Amino acid sequence: MSATSGTAIGSTTLDLDAIRTRVDAELDSFVREKAGSGAAARLPEEVIVTLHGFLFAGGKRIRPLLCVLGWLAGGGDPAVPEPVVRAAASVELFHASVLIHDDIIDDSDTRRDRPTVHRTLTDRHRDRRDPDRFGTHAAIVLGDLAMVWAAELLHTARLTASQLGAALTVLDSMRADVMYGQYLDLLATACPSSDLDRALEIVRYKTVSYTCDRPLQLGAALAGASPAVRVALTAYARPLGEAFQLRDDLLGVYGDPARSGKSNLEDLRDGKHTALVALALEHATTADAARLRELLGNPDLDERQADSCRAILTAAARPRVEEMITTRWEQAKHALIDAPFPVEVAGALSWLADAAVLRTS
Amino acid sequence: MSATSGTAIGSTTLDLDAIRTRVDAELDSFVREKAGSGAAARLPEEVIVTLHGFLFAGGKRIRPLLCVLGWLAGGGDPAVPEPVVRAAASVELFHASVLIHDDIIDDSDTRRDRPTVHRTLTDRHRDRRDPDRFGTHAAIVLGDLAMVWAAELLHTARLTASQLGAALTVLDSMRADVMYGQYLDLLATACPSSDLDRALEIVRYKTVSYTCDRPLQLGAALAGASPAVRVALTAYARPLGEAFQLRDDLLGVYGDPARSGKSNLEDLRDGKHTALVALALEHATTADAARLRELLGNPDLDERQADSCRAILTAAARPRVEEMITTRWEQAKHALIDAPFPVEVAGALSWLADAAVLRTS
Repeated sequence: MSATSGTAIGSTTLDLDAIRTRVDAELDSFVREKAGSGAAARLPEEVIVTLHGFLFAGGKRIRPLLCVLGWLAGGGDPAVPEPVVRAAASVELFHASVLIHDDIIDDSDTRRDRPTVHRTLTDRHRDRRDPDRFGTHAAIVLGDLAMVWAAELLHTARLTASQLGAALTVLDSMRADVMYGQYLDLLATACPSSDLDRALEIVRYKTVSYTCDRPLQLGAALAGASPAVRVALTAYARPLGEAFQLRDDLLGVYGDPARSGKSNLEDLRDGKHTALVALALEHATTADAARLRELLGNPDLDERQADSCRAILTAAARPRVEEMITTRWEQAKHALIDAPFPVEVAGALSWLADAAVLRTS
Repeated sequence: MSATSGTAIGSTTLDLDAIRTRVDAELDSFVREKAGSGAAARLPEEVIVTLHGFLFAGGKRIRPLLCVLGWLAGGGDPAVPEPVVRAAASVELFHASVLIHDDIIDDSDTRRDRPTVHRTLTDRHRDRRDPDRFGTHAAIVLGDLAMVWAAELLHTARLTASQLGAALTVLDSMRADVMYGQYLDLLATACPSSDLDRALEIVRYKTVSYTCDRPLQLGAALAGASPAVRVALTAYARPLGEAFQLRDDLLGVYGDPARSGKSNLEDLRDGKHTALVALALEHATTADAARLRELLGNPDLDERQADSCRAILTAAARPRVEEMITTRWEQAKHALIDAPFPVEVAGALSWLADAAVLRTS
């Protein structure tokens, strides 16, 4: 989802790269200003350096893009005023806080091809008595700080009072939904089961709502969009979010670490409960299902055992998941056909659906 | 800080217990409503039960009380409208989120005489493959959720738009300050030093600002208080916060666990950098200072070694810290003499200063 993300429908073009650049500029200047002024200036340099490095190591910026597209879908000014860009950027900073904690929870060493925040802080403090403990605990606090700063970034966006009120309502739900999803995910992890509904419930909170629908609704709320627009956005977001997560689940197991920047062993070692796993446990032979249950969640799983998992998952479930992705991708595209959006917005949303489904990282 | 907290000055009385009861009622109904409705209803019962149990296991409610007193100091309606109580309650819920993460960081088993949140969740999931890991990670998410819900509690308090704007400005600083303090605290922990300024800088963020000044300023902002009132509140809050933390440091080492509900070994085992420790390392004999450096931060410190620490701290620093507390207590009381507050508010603030300094838990 990079390079050629300008979308052209008829004669109109919507430059997603330009939006991404503006979001990044907001994030960059907010974090840099923190380093230079006020109470935060008393913080050790590593706080800002680590957070800034994490924010700019990559990331698709899908949530801020959807926020801006929600704004445009709702009839907001095509020039996208700065307060809207800033609100979109605050969603990305909140997301960074979620990822920092998520990497602690998943015990991940790398993300976006770089050490995760807790590993970075551990490495910086190798001379301490217990650098691992320090790194993890400092990353808990840094994640909390990112969450607090994300709120400040929104509050200082110079939204009107009615925009701010509408934004907070959407964001309160968005922020809670990802935590519900995280909690349900934790509960299901390392408990292999054929419960597909349970896997899809986690997806509903973590990806459908948090990643797709709420960011779109945030932009729509800022624009004062009509109920028809908001309904149409959800009709698009629901299948898109599921397709996005199902692709993510496949990449977590089959992805190329050189492209994705993260391990393709972790989901198996953690025993993540995904649709892929649920379907495999449902459809595999009894022997294969037993073998899979035995291997999933083994923190010491080696490459050979991982290949053994992959073979079972491929035989019993991968084509079904690919089919689910295709169905949902088509639903998302279909939802755009008669949607009451400007044509270039529908085009950009269509392009994003392609990118989410066809991506390899 | 319980039972007889009605304060009487002349013929006027301010019933702090009644305020505390109203704050608790807001917290109780907010968390219970979450359990019964909407997306949160899909969460396992343990989320609500654990958070509710933690909130109501005790706690001085000092921040919401100061918020309401800031409101009254600023000339707000003495009946204290519900939105103000709700804003005060949101500060307590935010504080719960800080404590949940703090207990993970300090590896604390108990708080308020009950298992900490991560221990509670570990105990509930003894049948899992790795209950300790689950408990810690679930508590990270539960702390995040409490932070998110604290924001929602404020946003849904039915404040006016101008009250909300003013509140967010104060809260953005309050929430960031505690994270700065936490980070500086982490850095200094297990690195025994005679740097008193460093210890007091941590106090400035974690206690002066976060615990005392910002909650008072929140209430004052909601009331649209004059600059004179706001300045007077800070003049009271600064020495009060330092006295409060210095007392806390003493209780962390010398406190009776039966009264405080928490261990008196943890600060020593963690090697917390406090004014007590800084002064001891400055003023102890060379041999004692070397011994103290050796013992502090030893995670396996036993009772005998802890007594050895206490003896050194008592000889070299405890009276100095008691003196610092007394000086700051007097300064806080002095700041109330000509403060432009209603007399019963000054009386309540004076009573709180006594309680903060004289407490045994």
